[in-house]
Amino acid sequence: MSAEAPASPRGKLFAELPPPAGGEIFQTLFSHSRCRIERIVSHGHASAPGDWYDQDADEWVVLLSGEAVLLFADGEAVSLASGDWIAIPAHRRHRVESTSADAMWLAVHCSPGD
Amino acid sequence: MSAEAPASPRGKLFAELPPPAGGEIFQTLFSHSRCRIERIVSHGHASAPGDWYDQDADEWVVLLSGEAVLLFADGEAVSLASGDWIAIPAHRRHRVESTSADAMWLAVHCSPGD
Repeated sequence: MSAEAPASPRGKLFAELPPPAGGEIFQTLFSHSRCRIERIVSHGHASAPGDWYDQDADEWVVLLSGEAVLLFADGEAVSLASGDWIAIPAHRRHRVESTSADAMWLAVHCSPGD
Repeated sequence: MSAEAPASPRGKLFAELPPPAGGEIFQTLFSHSRCRIERIVSHGHASAPGDWYDQDADEWVVLLSGEAVLLFADGEAVSLASGDWIAIPAHRRHRVESTSADAMWLAVHCSPGD
């Protein structure tokens, strides 16, 4: 038998968490032609002052543990608790204002399509 | 000012759960040109005997609460606990063999792209 890739890659979302470190830790779980799924472990991370995400892809993100506050460049602030999701259109500038030490996100990035 | 859609739709994954009912309850949370995100509440649901999912889209699915067993037509059985995710390629036939009463999934369907 020849070696081949597993038919159905799998993993554990709540396991193998990286040790606490400065900054956010991003891990791509699944990549597709137009969508990418990643786990983000925040460990109390906040964006640097004046730093804004300005993304080419639409993003759907859910906070799976902890608490966080997102701030949008238009002034809206959104407080998130575990289970809260938000869809962020491409180029809606935003930053992570604060996160709790146990904050973990699941993000789905959807590239512009036809 | 004219009425307009909220810039960032949002919701709560662990709230507004449907009451226990027979079968699975699917709710689309986010739709994009090539990806669709849905919440699936299973309430102990299993596929009917002989019933197989045969999907045109690749699926990435994570079990966010409860326990479940997926069975693939090629004979592989996969037991999932909370936080376990699996990527199921399009047309890999599978069925839900069993779920616990509190089983909830988050599924991302990615259509074939270029």
